[in-house]
Amino acid sequence: MTTGVRRRLGVEERRQQLIGVALELFSRRSPDEVSIDEIASAAGISRPLVYHYFPGKLSLYEAALQRASDDLASRFREPHEGPLGARLLRVMRRYFDFVDDHGPGFSALMRGGPAVGSSTTNALIDSVRQAAYEQILAHLGVEEPPARLELVIRSWISLAESTALIWLDGRRIPRAELETQLVHDFAALAAVSAAHDEEMTAILRRALKDEPGEGPFGDLAARLIALAS
Amino acid sequence: MTTGVRRRLGVEERRQQLIGVALELFSRRSPDEVSIDEIASAAGISRPLVYHYFPGKLSLYEAALQRASDDLASRFREPHEGPLGARLLRVMRRYFDFVDDHGPGFSALMRGGPAVGSSTTNALIDSVRQAAYEQILAHLGVEEPPARLELVIRSWISLAESTALIWLDGRRIPRAELETQLVHDFAALAAVSAAHDEEMTAILRRALKDEPGEGPFGDLAARLIALAS
Repeated sequence: MTTGVRRRLGVEERRQQLIGVALELFSRRSPDEVSIDEIASAAGISRPLVYHYFPGKLSLYEAALQRASDDLASRFREPHEGPLGARLLRVMRRYFDFVDDHGPGFSALMRGGPAVGSSTTNALIDSVRQAAYEQILAHLGVEEPPARLELVIRSWISLAESTALIWLDGRRIPRAELETQLVHDFAALAAVSAAHDEEMTAILRRALKDEPGEGPFGDLAARLIALAS
Repeated sequence: MTTGVRRRLGVEERRQQLIGVALELFSRRSPDEVSIDEIASAAGISRPLVYHYFPGKLSLYEAALQRASDDLASRFREPHEGPLGARLLRVMRRYFDFVDDHGPGFSALMRGGPAVGSSTTNALIDSVRQAAYEQILAHLGVEEPPARLELVIRSWISLAESTALIWLDGRRIPRAELETQLVHDFAALAAVSAAHDEEMTAILRRALKDEPGEGPFGDLAARLIALAS
């Protein structure tokens, strides 16, 4: 019995080790360029043994992507305390930490990598976007979002993705600036929507009522006033 | 000689007809769901004859996508006259006309359709994005864009894509509102960037100098001031 239990644990441990090794390699270089031989070598096992645990590179890639997705989604969780702008800024810092750690793999995946079109891969990407969307709704305290709020949140999530991808392509702008900028972008897109719709105005006013004057939104409004004058 | 020339023209005409028929079908339903049999039937020819002109569904899909890409890119062209906000609004109307006409095919393509991961498909999508980017730079009169301007334009293009995709999913917001909103979004994202960077401030000031007070940017600033107060 004990041996049996141990052996099963061993299999799972080996799988987890291989996933970790693969994720590390897929994060540093485009997954296209990483071979099973290389993964086997980095894990210190033979190529056939890799295939014993994973039937092919796609299944190992999907397992690595599952772990990365769980990791990223966990970074969106933030205590419901203090001004919203500061909460979002902390999440943006953790998001850029993730992007920084997994640059080439993140780019390859989002730009159309080896497993794009795989339903598993698409479902994982969608699940991370959905986790981000639900976290933002929860922080706004909105349970039944109107269509315009859903649009603002989901389109801002895609803006955050493209901002990260463009940043990775040369890193020509300091990431701290982009982290703040994305918080400002969220406020700006919500404000544009509020400028078109009363329900959005009410949601935005409620969201902003505890923001300090020197917070992202107040700062942005002041700068826009200066620009417009 | 004449017959030879005619025959070559006939082949090209038949190809163009098939591309048109396929594009129509791929636009109305997800390309996954469109069969070669259906395309043959809609074109009034036999299935083997379709394969005579196109080796498989992917090559026909790519040819249809090429035509759609050329069509979309042509809609970005706009005379360099009058205020920038009004120019962008006209382009947004033509963009939503396109999205409206090709809804299911556009969604399938952008959400990871049948040919995603095909290098031809990815190259076509990138070429349309690049055309949009170059048009905006030309209208701004900027030849060597700083990294922050490139980021604003490219990330706004991805915002426009996701806004169109979200709109297609239920059409819960009037498209005219979204066309105006995307112009406002561009101004807002540029303003956020300008709030972080002096070079962007100079570019934005130059872009706005001919904007009427009641244009998108003035309107947005006034509404933000009202919201912030």
